Amino acid sequence: MSNGRAVNGFLLDITGVLYNSIYKSDGVAIAKSAEAVDFLYKHSNVKFLSNAKGNSNRNVARRLQRLGINIREEDVITPAPVVAQYCRENKLRPHLFVREDVLQYFDGIDTSSPNCVVMGEVEEGFSFERINRAFRVLIDMPKPLLITMGNGKFFQRVDGPCIDVGAFAAALKFSTNCEVLNIGKPSRFYFEQGINALGMKPEEIVMVGDDLMSDVGGAQACGMRGIQVRTGKWRPDFEKLPVTPDLTADCLYDAVKLIADNGFRL
Amino acid sequence: MSNGRAVNGFLLDITGVLYNSIYKSDGVAIAKSAEAVDFLYKHSNVKFLSNAKGNSNRNVARRLQRLGINIREEDVITPAPVVAQYCRENKLRPHLFVREDVLQYFDGIDTSSPNCVVMGEVEEGFSFERINRAFRVLIDMPKPLLITMGNGKFFQRVDGPCIDVGAFAAALKFSTNCEVLNIGKPSRFYFEQGINALGMKPEEIVMVGDDLMSDVGGAQACGMRGIQVRTGKWRPDFEKLPVTPDLTADCLYDAVKLIADNGFRL
Repeated sequence: MSNGRAVNGFLLDITGVLYNSIYKSDGVAIAKSAEAVDFLYKHSNVKFLSNAKGNSNRNVARRLQRLGINIREEDVITPAPVVAQYCRENKLRPHLFVREDVLQYFDGIDTSSPNCVVMGEVEEGFSFERINRAFRVLIDMPKPLLITMGNGKFFQRVDGPCIDVGAFAAALKFSTNCEVLNIGKPSRFYFEQGINALGMKPEEIVMVGDDLMSDVGGAQACGMRGIQVRTGKWRPDFEKLPVTPDLTADCLYDAVKLIADNGFRL
Repeated sequence: MSNGRAVNGFLLDITGVLYNSIYKSDGVAIAKSAEAVDFLYKHSNVKFLSNAKGNSNRNVARRLQRLGINIREEDVITPAPVVAQYCRENKLRPHLFVREDVLQYFDGIDTSSPNCVVMGEVEEGFSFERINRAFRVLIDMPKPLLITMGNGKFFQRVDGPCIDVGAFAAALKFSTNCEVLNIGKPSRFYFEQGINALGMKPEEIVMVGDDLMSDVGGAQACGMRGIQVRTGKWRPDFEKLPVTPDLTADCLYDAVKLIADNGFRL
């Protein structure tokens, strides 16, 4: 690894890489992630590509700042504003099954007589009646379309793993035979948001994440290098899965330090 | 049809055939279903094979009786007691994601350190936290097993279609890769409960239901004849689906009258 290829930019996952999530609290910073972020702002280029669907970019950044991790709101990429832009460009009228804090991104978008469902709700706002309303919108469409903010199997909270929005997309697909469009990792369209924000070629970028299939595999499929950290939702049995990271490190800080010590090559 | 084969027994679906469901109420009887049931008790043999998962057989029968439909508790077959018996016979220790009213069937079954999940909950008792508890039980098993009480895409309430337990089975399968065992229509094991209760050969029996795939197709796959009624969840586009009923009638009463007028042959 003494040579390797140049690393000019970093895309970082947020949850499970910078901090761990605790239900109805800010969560806890992962050791030395604050230092890693400061270092990257100073010595490289960094953007944050998250599938977080419950909060606005402003509130995602503020939460991290409260944990002592100084990320800037304008460097945060989350699915909701990307989905809203996609709706605008494609003249979609979404039924919104999303958190209150991200509704602001859909201001000005016509939501009457919906021709798709946008889903990004789990945990406290999730209820039978809400998924049933989404189901009823889809079952009445000739060609039902579900846009999901991420398609994960589970997310990790400090108290344990939690079933994620991908499962409820599978539920709605089972009952309505809808098309499912994921705007979130690992979709290429979503990774391109991060690549474009860094303004460089995919091969110059490393993506650091805790989800082997979605973060690491998804980044590699887009021509980036994928780094697995052993934090967040990482599990030892990831080794059995059919994706091989370009690097596996105990935490973000270790990954950053290793690459920096190698002259920003990997 | 002036000849046809003998019909010696009737298996009737309940919801959508005898009555229509209304959220948090007894629902409403379907016209002349009470007369049809009285007639069958007098002139033929009849059992009721339902995927209803929220109430005990006693409360299912009482609800129908309050609507003026005189079905007997001992003739009602629902999944919960069948699942409980299956757990006993197979030494399963279920995590119970079911309605309170059916917990009684699981009395005496060890539910500590569960080795399967039993799911039959939708509507008011469904919550993110409850499906998440089921998810956590499954994700921790080496060979996760989910037993679902029915596997329907949706059920019909008077206010509209509602996403059903089959969707949430698909959700849990997506996130845990669990095996899904349906104990409910259209599983052969479950239809056999009805066949055995009537104590006759499948070819002597007709199943009357509102769900083309589950009731009609499932019965036919077991050697019974399947009758579609145009009540409950019936939709005109059922005609595009790959199951052809042995008879389609506007309602249960019409089906029963037609068969009786033909000398109990179809």
